[in-house]
Amino acid sequence: MADIVPPPPNGSLMLAWQVKNKHVLVVGAGDVALSRVDHLLQANAKITVVTGESVHPILRKYHEMGLLEDLIVRNFRLSDLKLYEPKNIRQRVMELDHDSDEDNDDGEIAALSEEAVKLIEEFEQCKFKMVLTCINDYPLSLRIWQKCKGLGIDVNLADKPANCDFYFGSVYRQGPLQIMISTNGKSPRLCNRIKTKMLIPMFEVLDLESAVENLGYLRFQLQKVYHPGDDTKVIKERMEWNRKITDFYSIQDWCVMKHESIDKILKLYPEFPSADTLK
Amino acid sequence: MADIVPPPPNGSLMLAWQVKNKHVLVVGAGDVALSRVDHLLQANAKITVVTGESVHPILRKYHEMGLLEDLIVRNFRLSDLKLYEPKNIRQRVMELDHDSDEDNDDGEIAALSEEAVKLIEEFEQCKFKMVLTCINDYPLSLRIWQKCKGLGIDVNLADKPANCDFYFGSVYRQGPLQIMISTNGKSPRLCNRIKTKMLIPMFEVLDLESAVENLGYLRFQLQKVYHPGDDTKVIKERMEWNRKITDFYSIQDWCVMKHESIDKILKLYPEFPSADTLK
Repeated sequence: MADIVPPPPNGSLMLAWQVKNKHVLVVGAGDVALSRVDHLLQANAKITVVTGESVHPILRKYHEMGLLEDLIVRNFRLSDLKLYEPKNIRQRVMELDHDSDEDNDDGEIAALSEEAVKLIEEFEQCKFKMVLTCINDYPLSLRIWQKCKGLGIDVNLADKPANCDFYFGSVYRQGPLQIMISTNGKSPRLCNRIKTKMLIPMFEVLDLESAVENLGYLRFQLQKVYHPGDDTKVIKERMEWNRKITDFYSIQDWCVMKHESIDKILKLYPEFPSADTLK
Repeated sequence: MADIVPPPPNGSLMLAWQVKNKHVLVVGAGDVALSRVDHLLQANAKITVVTGESVHPILRKYHEMGLLEDLIVRNFRLSDLKLYEPKNIRQRVMELDHDSDEDNDDGEIAALSEEAVKLIEEFEQCKFKMVLTCINDYPLSLRIWQKCKGLGIDVNLADKPANCDFYFGSVYRQGPLQIMISTNGKSPRLCNRIKTKMLIPMFEVLDLESAVENLGYLRFQLQKVYHPGDDTKVIKERMEWNRKITDFYSIQDWCVMKHESIDKILKLYPEFPSADTLK
């Protein structure tokens, strides 16, 4: 235990955020807003843009194509932060919290009523999950940040790192594979260069989308046909074999493998194939 | 405008989350909890671990080393989700929100009092920014999720993607540079392989920490000495030159450059150096 070296600090927490079908608000409609919307479209967010200024033609086009939840061209109002919340839903959820605030003396945690759970799920669907301001009006941006903090909404104020719950980075994507490069705000341009000069040349010659699909097929067949079952032991065995078989072939192999070859590999389960199986 | 191709959907929103000096709660203390804590330590979070089970020896060691805010070994209580919130602060912030709920008729958005802003900032510091459950008790995890949704806290339940605001990925790090690889939950093992077999061999021969430091020095000197000023035109000129000079040299060049060479480049501002400046 003497040689425990904790991870070095002063980085970011790199995360793949899930905003599929969740409301996200973008304030402003210029170049930065367009870049934010492009990120959000990749994650299937329900995007609402509020802007009092002129609208980027591509954002307007996105709206015409039905890609935005809404494009509202008028001055921002603080009440926009609860745009899709039915009247009183927030208060009702808060009161729910208050009711269940005390843990039982015996350490048991009481379950919520079905009605209460539904209310929480409804609230989760109607509230904004995040708010991104992309405007030059810092006092307004800051006022939005303040209100969001009270409402429990994550915020990014463009160009104001101190008021950002999260930063964007350079992202390379190929189907389900996504790679984000960040220098923790220190050199966004270098991130872009690393993406362009190092990642793209290395990854564009590979069909990683097929590799992911192939590994998904392998896992699915293993679970449904070759080693089904839900108990902990079986799940553990599957995970172990999956891990080892993924490492058994090269990334390049997985990119070009056919389902017939995967079927052959599966038939050997729980053994591992000989090195020349794919030849 | 006919050829606008929106970004492909069905991915994640890749983000660098900022939890420096913010409270984060980890429920559980096994292998998964340790992995979460390692991610969080990289981002300087104030980590509290609550666990009724046995504690991973490395987590115990981390606590002894003073790396954790707290390690609480007892059954989880719902009130733990407000562990660091002074009594009534949440309610006072909510009431604040209620007071300022209406926008003025003339479209002006009223500023908050200094006292109110302080209260919001205090709340932001004392509330949990995120909660990560790493336990086998799904009903309890789900109950924690429900309460967090009411409290405006982001949540990740290990192994329950449907209840996760975010996923973790494989992360390669070199100083301030961080690269996250994700397949959107489809093949974590492939992410690990891509990191090990593709990214590490390519990046370990480069001193990217120096590249980031060098570009930071260049930017700082440009702003303080060679082209100071705060007006929009000057900032734009600096950004433009910065962008172009970053691209002028290769990533490899920036990794090995000396400050004397950077000073030479800066003296040429706003010109660009000839191709053999570094020779």
